[in-house]
Amino acid sequence: MLSTFGESHGTAIGGIIDGCPAGLKIDFTFIQNELDKRKPGQSKITTQRKESDSVEFLSGILNGISTGTPIGFIIKNENQKESDYSHLEETFRPGHADFTYLQKYGLKHTAGGGRASARETACRVVAGAVAKLFLKHYKITVSAFVQSVKNIEADKNWMEKKNSLIESNKEKNLVRCPDARAAKKMQELIEQTKKNGNTVGGVISCKIENIPAGIGEPVFDKLQAELAKAMLSINAAKGFEYGLGFDSTKIYGSEMNDVFISDKNKSIKTLSNNSGGILGGISNGMPVTFNVAFKPVSTIMQDQNSVDKNGKQIVLKGKGRHDPCVLPRAVPIVEAMAALVVADLLLRNRSSKL
Amino acid sequence: MLSTFGESHGTAIGGIIDGCPAGLKIDFTFIQNELDKRKPGQSKITTQRKESDSVEFLSGILNGISTGTPIGFIIKNENQKESDYSHLEETFRPGHADFTYLQKYGLKHTAGGGRASARETACRVVAGAVAKLFLKHYKITVSAFVQSVKNIEADKNWMEKKNSLIESNKEKNLVRCPDARAAKKMQELIEQTKKNGNTVGGVISCKIENIPAGIGEPVFDKLQAELAKAMLSINAAKGFEYGLGFDSTKIYGSEMNDVFISDKNKSIKTLSNNSGGILGGISNGMPVTFNVAFKPVSTIMQDQNSVDKNGKQIVLKGKGRHDPCVLPRAVPIVEAMAALVVADLLLRNRSSKL
Amino acid sequence: MLSTFGESHGTAIGGIIDGCPAGLKIDFTFIQNELDKRKPGQSKITTQRKESDSVEFLSGILNGISTGTPIGFIIKNENQKESDYSHLEETFRPGHADFTYLQKYGLKHTAGGGRASARETACRVVAGAVAKLFLKHYKITVSAFVQSVKNIEADKNWMEKKNSLIESNKEKNLVRCPDARAAKKMQELIEQTKKNGNTVGGVISCKIENIPAGIGEPVFDKLQAELAKAMLSINAAKGFEYGLGFDSTKIYGSEMNDVFISDKNKSIKTLSNNSGGILGGISNGMPVTFNVAFKPVSTIMQDQNSVDKNGKQIVLKGKGRHDPCVLPRAVPIVEAMAALVVADLLLRNRSSKL
Amino acid sequence: MLSTFGESHGTAIGGIIDGCPAGLKIDFTFIQNELDKRKPGQSKITTQRKESDSVEFLSGILNGISTGTPIGFIIKNENQKESDYSHLEETFRPGHADFTYLQKYGLKHTAGGGRASARETACRVVAGAVAKLFLKHYKITVSAFVQSVKNIEADKNWMEKKNSLIESNKEKNLVRCPDARAAKKMQELIEQTKKNGNTVGGVISCKIENIPAGIGEPVFDKLQAELAKAMLSINAAKGFEYGLGFDSTKIYGSEMNDVFISDKNKSIKTLSNNSGGILGGISNGMPVTFNVAFKPVSTIMQDQNSVDKNGKQIVLKGKGRHDPCVLPRAVPIVEAMAALVVADLLLRNRSSKL
Repeated sequence: MLSTFGESHGTAIGGIIDGCPAGLKIDFTFIQNELDKRKPGQSKITTQRKESDSVEFLSGILNGISTGTPIGFIIKNENQKESDYSHLEETFRPGHADFTYLQKYGLKHTAGGGRASARETACRVVAGAVAKLFLKHYKITVSAFVQSVKNIEADKNWMEKKNSLIESNKEKNLVRCPDARAAKKMQELIEQTKKNGNTVGGVISCKIENIPAGIGEPVFDKLQAELAKAMLSINAAKGFEYGLGFDSTKIYGSEMNDVFISDKNKSIKTLSNNSGGILGGISNGMPVTFNVAFKPVSTIMQDQNSVDKNGKQIVLKGKGRHDPCVLPRAVPIVEAMAALVVADLLLRNRSSKL
Repeated sequence: MLSTFGESHGTAIGGIIDGCPAGLKIDFTFIQNELDKRKPGQSKITTQRKESDSVEFLSGILNGISTGTPIGFIIKNENQKESDYSHLEETFRPGHADFTYLQKYGLKHTAGGGRASARETACRVVAGAVAKLFLKHYKITVSAFVQSVKNIEADKNWMEKKNSLIESNKEKNLVRCPDARAAKKMQELIEQTKKNGNTVGGVISCKIENIPAGIGEPVFDKLQAELAKAMLSINAAKGFEYGLGFDSTKIYGSEMNDVFISDKNKSIKTLSNNSGGILGGISNGMPVTFNVAFKPVSTIMQDQNSVDKNGKQIVLKGKGRHDPCVLPRAVPIVEAMAALVVADLLLRNRSSKL
Repeated sequence: MLSTFGESHGTAIGGIIDGCPAGLKIDFTFIQNELDKRKPGQSKITTQRKESDSVEFLSGILNGISTGTPIGFIIKNENQKESDYSHLEETFRPGHADFTYLQKYGLKHTAGGGRASARETACRVVAGAVAKLFLKHYKITVSAFVQSVKNIEADKNWMEKKNSLIESNKEKNLVRCPDARAAKKMQELIEQTKKNGNTVGGVISCKIENIPAGIGEPVFDKLQAELAKAMLSINAAKGFEYGLGFDSTKIYGSEMNDVFISDKNKSIKTLSNNSGGILGGISNGMPVTFNVAFKPVSTIMQDQNSVDKNGKQIVLKGKGRHDPCVLPRAVPIVEAMAALVVADLLLRNRSSKL
Repeated sequence: MLSTFGESHGTAIGGIIDGCPAGLKIDFTFIQNELDKRKPGQSKITTQRKESDSVEFLSGILNGISTGTPIGFIIKNENQKESDYSHLEETFRPGHADFTYLQKYGLKHTAGGGRASARETACRVVAGAVAKLFLKHYKITVSAFVQSVKNIEADKNWMEKKNSLIESNKEKNLVRCPDARAAKKMQELIEQTKKNGNTVGGVISCKIENIPAGIGEPVFDKLQAELAKAMLSINAAKGFEYGLGFDSTKIYGSEMNDVFISDKNKSIKTLSNNSGGILGGISNGMPVTFNVAFKPVSTIMQDQNSVDKNGKQIVLKGKGRHDPCVLPRAVPIVEAMAALVVADLLLRNRSSKL
């Protein structure tokens, strides 16, 4: 279980990972690597804002081993330029949370997004990395990649390949798409979009490999329900589907059903995986597969109409340093949230039987 | 908050609604009407299994008014025919939870789906109806309708119409689609599919009207995250999207952003509603709109290959009484879950300000 | 985890036991026996109100084995005599919750206590009995007994005897005190008190035997903290102490500390058990021992001054059928709550290590 | 709601306060003052270990006002002398959690108490101070004081005096007992005990003033149940009682019941306050009063018998700097936990009525 705190422009952000079992070897290099995949300024197609994003663990680990007590950590904020946002104080940016925070809390939060800034997701990546280390003991891996950017799509069959292959291929390009041809086009589109001061969205696919059968709760906390909540809690996420997802509405039940078979090891599998590895909210031993839709980021470098606090119409100038496409940096966040969900349900499942 | 219990073939199912504020007038007729929209055997395009599904309230209500303490209720199961399912005892039905329950709990649950049966959702409709009564005090309404069945789609613009209009139109046909032309084709397709012993899925759209700005929590419990979890916890749901959803990945940020305006009452709105009424996880005062994908039901009246407990290959005969298309009966379930989510977050929001 | 619902004078009370692992043999006779220890009218020193208190299980059990899904149950209310309480409608009974419920919920709940009635604890006994069956697998037993009634105290050394001996002795008398001499005097006092239309309280002691070391969480959810909450949630409980409790404030640290030793089986124990089997919130393998103080029941058969809703002074007549001393019937409730706490923490502890 | 992390000898301890409503003025000086009441080395009767214990807020506050989002904070650890504890690595200290942590987590935590150290309670004082600021808006105050040290007791009637009077008197001496005569004797006893290398315990009394009627939940989360859990979660606490507590077991119901009266402002009160301000788990508008028993601290400066990991008998030498009596420093912790409980239940109560 993860609790986080922190705003984009405070001293630090951080969190508490509660419930990590004792005895887990904490690989700090691995965790920092995960965090580096999310950090700003990592390539020419992400925001040029720089943050070193180095995580400091404060508790719960002794001699590199988890002790079973809460793991507290912080990531210091650097490079805050309050002045960057001073022009926004009195106005509502389209697509942003300025207006809704004011409505909810009765006061305007700090400029630059405050708690609504995607900066908060760095803490999720830290916790997700710890969850991944835990899942490694079960040989479970989580791999996400960019499936589409605007109208450019990667080959659909990457979801059926091994996670190890996905990983080695997606890190060969800046987009984190394992399909080299599509990645090249995606990168060109993102660069062109940036030049135009605009933004684009896309779809991230994710696969959880080697998840044993039996994970997930039967009714309200179904595995797909927890995944959907986790994914929709990510900034800019607009949709979630698992297995065949929305496409399953286009076919007949006789086409949709996955046939059970017994493989050579007498292990029961399904021939196809339209169900995305989940039946009745519980994993069936096949890979869990899902897609997440991300809208184009709201901050664009173009003039936009809006209103200020008093309802007066104004024109917002596009300024600052932002991402033309959030997807490459969202890949580790999707993986982190998926890892946290599976780790939690895996632990919870320890109580399913006598 | 709702807890439920019960299997398809036990004595009764039921639940506890905890946290309903004191002083709410409980309209029992309204609740039973909601339940009747979900019950089996209501029309020729649903399963012919008969259940009267009458709810019995046991506590938490005095003289027709909620007392503030837990509202317990049960719905008795009638018409259980154990023999209907005896042929399934030793086999795994494709698309069903028999296999995963066995993996999770180490024992086979009762035939006919047990806890995994959609019968459990009747309890959600009861609780959702109480939540709707609570929302009425805020003039908030929740309307869901069938947007598509397989490849037949209703006119897209129904999402922009008033909920009162949606309600009056959707109840004119058996499909619960407000677009009469599409509804007719959908019904024909469902009847034809039934004849073929097959099943079809589709998409249900839902709109929450008059929800005030400020509802939803900023990070993990975003309004869309809670809705996504609630929807994906419904049997057969495969996907969720809000606002423009997956389509938002196809356009530029400049097209996606909703422009803020000040209407004649000095109230701040957005010109378009691509965001689906939510910014940063918090409602912005515009209608909240979302779609849920439902796969075709897994129980088909055709022979299917599968295996038994020992991995031996077998052929499953299609038998029994089941829904060729679950969507008309899923409409009240989608509404119930949405109402519960909004009611919970509305109460939670009472603590947002000093 | 237990959720309950129900008022003293509705149709039924009931609850949901969530999280009982699959595969537990449910001994219905045992559960009903436990319930019978709490039921009214069981002896001449308890209230003469009659309720058969038979529990009906509605779900979560198949062929006498828990399935892992929620266990729903109800206990029907019999013998409601609304008229018994009609004279109380407009007044506030001293020591009762009429006034505070009105303040909290803005409306007066049903006469006779409503949700505040100790009738609700019957559901706890049902769930506690299931928890006891679960604990049996670990050979853990929970035994409570009456340690004192007003100024009559049982021999202190009963806490050091085996639970099996406590059980066999305490059930030999109506008071549930294993010390036969004290029990006799207690019974006489209770009978005399009843004649005078008055009530008495006392202390219940409880011992959890064979609880393994390691149970309990380190900070907020310490074993003693969860036990304290559980005990203080019981009607009429006024205090909780574990190990030496309040007496530990009277001695020096050098007298308080229990010395660790290694027994002949190389198992580490403590010589004394002043700590009550808990160190740092976690069980140390010694018996967990605690005491709970119960005030004399508030309903007395004497005239009492009070006020009505409008603040007008009135005299309340003592009428009805109530317990002169709640302790004999509270013994199974204390055991039930202790069993639930230990079962929950035991399951939670399954995640303490990798 | 408070989550904490941190060990006595890590880099820092800290926590997250979640659910503090927006708009609360955060008085940093007040918070640090509260913390100073708990810090080590504050007087000659506490441990001479020095920690400045200055709290650093990292988020959730803007321009001195709470924003409604999580308030993260840390307190750096200074003056860690690992060597102080090196002699304890292989042994189990009587009364300490070394043994139980090893049993629970399978590994020995850091020396010096680790997570089990009372150092963690500094975070509770920070959060409790924020809760006190919130309660001030309702004019609710929380005052705890030392009622007894070993066999020396303060005058019983301090519980009936105004909190303002208690506060001004208790801070006049090192013991935090408002009764000057008793305080003098307590101080002498503590000093003498220290000289002998021993420790003493005692009782802390606490009063919550101006708490409105209606706070607390009716069944499991009764106000006294939450208080009991909060108090028993404090290190060294062995017992809790509210109102007359254990003494209520010694009197008749006719003596125990508090008579309702209507005061000159037509407000309904009770003549006496045996109930400790709570009826049926819900505050009745009278002051909430309770006592907490603290054992003598386990660390003594005398030789003690114990065993090491292998069960070998050893003699532990008393070394280091510790408190001869924990009560003066526990007073702010009791207040902090009480303030947190009341703040939480007060916010929760915002949903009790329509």
